[in-house]
Amino acid sequence: MTQLSGTPRTALRRHRERGRTERDELYAVLDAGLVCHLGVIAGGGPRVLPTGYGRVGDTLYLHGSSANATFMAAAGQPVCVTVTHLDGLVCARAVFSHSMNYRSAMIYGVARLVTGQAMRVEALRVITEHLTPGQWSYARQPSAKELAATSVLELPLTEASVKVRDGGPTDEPADYALDVWAGVVPVTVSFGEPVPDTALRPGISAPAHLRRS
Amino acid sequence: MTQLSGTPRTALRRHRERGRTERDELYAVLDAGLVCHLGVIAGGGPRVLPTGYGRVGDTLYLHGSSANATFMAAAGQPVCVTVTHLDGLVCARAVFSHSMNYRSAMIYGVARLVTGQAMRVEALRVITEHLTPGQWSYARQPSAKELAATSVLELPLTEASVKVRDGGPTDEPADYALDVWAGVVPVTVSFGEPVPDTALRPGISAPAHLRRS
Repeated sequence: MTQLSGTPRTALRRHRERGRTERDELYAVLDAGLVCHLGVIAGGGPRVLPTGYGRVGDTLYLHGSSANATFMAAAGQPVCVTVTHLDGLVCARAVFSHSMNYRSAMIYGVARLVTGQAMRVEALRVITEHLTPGQWSYARQPSAKELAATSVLELPLTEASVKVRDGGPTDEPADYALDVWAGVVPVTVSFGEPVPDTALRPGISAPAHLRRS
Repeated sequence: MTQLSGTPRTALRRHRERGRTERDELYAVLDAGLVCHLGVIAGGGPRVLPTGYGRVGDTLYLHGSSANATFMAAAGQPVCVTVTHLDGLVCARAVFSHSMNYRSAMIYGVARLVTGQAMRVEALRVITEHLTPGQWSYARQPSAKELAATSVLELPLTEASVKVRDGGPTDEPADYALDVWAGVVPVTVSFGEPVPDTALRPGISAPAHLRRS
């Protein structure tokens, strides 16, 4: 597997055991997510925008409305994109030893606006297929006017850190004697049964690719 | 209910119908969340850090390790804290009309390090109780040394925007005639049965407050 190359801002100073250095582990965190948080400097301060994304190889694509000032402010600028999965609430015998099980990725880089029409269409396909696999070829394709209303940013997966915490709590040695329960409350994200639109024409059932529960 | 006071950066330029202006709606989004994303400028660029939080009235508390450089960089600086709930994948008849159902809050302000010991303990209690209600009084209280290792930031809920999208897809009029299913795939976050630590002493069962499934 390819290693992630470290830089000063991706180096972990604490809990180094939670760091992951394989590129495949970055891919796994990104591919399992639905929404990322895009950090950008706009109006002199930081802004954090939740948005959809998709990945091809070592490129992350994010999409937003061309009318969204915060999203558009990221074009050509340094950004930080974070994807976080909360997997569990780690309950220890001491309040201070409580923690969370999670998988997270932070990517740093300069976001570029994707301008070529063919590449924009491909990026939108990737993002749509990331969120709802199977929908791109199932639903009506975008028109030229619709494509113009959507902007796509690309971010190379060059500088990234990945952190994973799993397993049970770690308590201070003396605390193991306490009469206190310890363990993990799992947190899971799940998809429900598709709920039809009230305006759905009769006789159209949800396609199999949307039944993810 | 109290209104959120608008500022240029909280004003919605698009999808104004998704904006929420009641303070209670901000509280609802924050109180339902587990992890926030803290945006801060550090090393000349934006960073987005997932972290735990809690709320008392119009103050948000965030906690992090005193050794976490990104978290500590937020002290005294302008930050943006975003809490996002993804509620559903909105599948339309056209690719372009796809959307997501979500609730999100973005808070802007200057984060302040909480320094008074009593206030720090209270803030940590609030954060612990937000993530795992009932655990603060159940587990061992923090020692002075443990308290010193944790930092708490406070952020006033003065400048915030809240956005909510729910319901089914909105398609272009002509698309309703298409032979394409449309609706929502619900996305839910749930808690599982508590999993005991492998080092748990025999005879200690999980307290009722951790059974949230």
